[in-house]
This record gives sequence, C-alpha cells and structure tokens, in this order.
Amino acid sequence: MSLDGTYDEGNVFALILQGKIPSTKLYEDEHTYAFLDIQPQSKGHSLVISKWSKARNILEVEDEALAQVMATVKKVARATRKALDPDGIHVAQFNGAPAGQTVFHLHVHIVPRWEGQSRSFVAHAQGDFADPAALQALAEEIRAQF
Amino acid sequence: MSLDGTYDEGNVFALILQGKIPSTKLYEDEHTYAFLDIQPQSKGHSLVISKWSKARNILEVEDEALAQVMATVKKVARATRKALDPDGIHVAQFNGAPAGQTVFHLHVHIVPRWEGQSRSFVAHAQGDFADPAALQALAEEIRAQF
Repeated sequence: MSLDGTYDEGNVFALILQGKIPSTKLYEDEHTYAFLDIQPQSKGHSLVISKWSKARNILEVEDEALAQVMATVKKVARATRKALDPDGIHVAQFNGAPAGQTVFHLHVHIVPRWEGQSRSFVAHAQGDFADPAALQALAEEIRAQF
Repeated sequence: MSLDGTYDEGNVFALILQGKIPSTKLYEDEHTYAFLDIQPQSKGHSLVISKWSKARNILEVEDEALAQVMATVKKVARATRKALDPDGIHVAQFNGAPAGQTVFHLHVHIVPRWEGQSRSFVAHAQGDFADPAALQALAEEIRAQF
C-alpha cells in the first residue's frame, strides 16, 4: 500500500484497540496504547499507537496525536531501559509499504539494541512469532518500571 | 557512547545551530531546525533537531521539545513527499551508539524510500558524502513545498 489511500477500520491495530484481537499491554493512557510486538526484532520490541487518530501515517496525523504518541514512546523507552538494560534503543516509524509499513494505522516501534547484535529491521514476513507466555512475562517486567 | 553520559556542547549539531558548521537548511521555526544529511541514505534524507533542548536522546528529552521536533518532522515529510514523490518515508531516531547514534544531540531522520531500493540504514562510516551543490539544489526543491 502506498502513501495514498484511506484508513481501513478493520486494520489489525484498530481491532486491538476494540479488544477484538488480543495484545500484550505495556502501558495505556487516555490517548495512547503501548503493547509488545508479536514478531519482535529484539527482546522487548514494542509499539505505540494513538487510540483516537485515524491517521495511517505521519503525513496525515494530527500534531496533537503525534505529540501524545511520542510522549508515550518516551515513557515506554524509559521503562524498557530500566527493565532490560539495553545498550541502545532504536525508534522507528514507517510510512508506506516500500518503507516497511505493514499495518496502516500510524505506529512507532521501540526496539532495544544490544552491543554486537544486528541493528537492522528484518522484514515482518521473515520474523519469528514470539511465545505468548514469554511475552506476558516480559510485559510484567517492563510494566513494573513505569 | 552509551545511553549514559552528559550533553557535549561541542557536538556537530550544536555547532550547526551556532552557525559554526555549515548546513543545508530545509526549514526552521522558533524551536526546531531541519537540514539535509550530508551522508544521505537516499535522495532527500533530512534531519530535524530541537534548537533549545540539551537532550542527547529520547530518554532525556522534554515532552515539549519532542512534540515540537515531531511536528516539524511531519512538515518536512510532507514537503519532501511533494517535492520528490517517494513511495514511502522511513522515520528513525537512534539512541546510543549500539543503536546507530553518531551525534549525541537528539535528532530524527526522515528517509524517502523508493520501491525496489534498500530499506536498510547503512552505517555512517560507510556512507558516501553528498556533493554540496547537489544538496543545495535538492534543498531548493524541497523548500519550495512548505
């Protein structure tokens, strides 16, 4: 999907927000929701989304929604650092399929990085799914640090 | 450099803001500054920084500075799209050297992507420097779209 188009109310993140698809929550406030990626690029890889904006990407997003999402990205990055002690944190936001976007509800990736490990994103189609019980345990570690 | 440490007043972006090092400006407002990367990952690769925050990374940044930077990232992404018609746009923000950060003043990368080209970041040490005249011409194209 290109940068053109319209918001699909049935996208995976919309369904997560509606509770129709399960997710492993890290943090939630009035405007934003943070959860673990089920195809993690590294241990603790999470995503932050707006609960109200119907923006597919950064070109469309309201400044207010973007500010709310980024404030939560900061909170999640800080909690993730306290819980997992990574050497670095990669924040990424993809717009359009040719840039790596696979779900067309604006989202920001938070990927902990450790010295000596890959810094590259693996295409989602090649990524392994995480064990749900392991994700729950990890989420508890991170949630304890907010 | 790890996620720990203190802000270095002599970092390259601080010197750019002080006018001690030249840069190819795309956009500027009261709080933020956008310019072309001299080692571009793709045509039109730009950076956005805060003019006042002394944050090295997202863990330290004031919510207000982050919101200002991201609002400018959106503006620059929109102007870049109008000027260059990329198929996608990759937004990235690195924290700590092991995550790919090379300048320790918080900054956000805006990287246009075209179908069929690489989606990966190349380490800066391997990146070619752009021709300054070409950067100026490119900046004029993008500036015309704000």
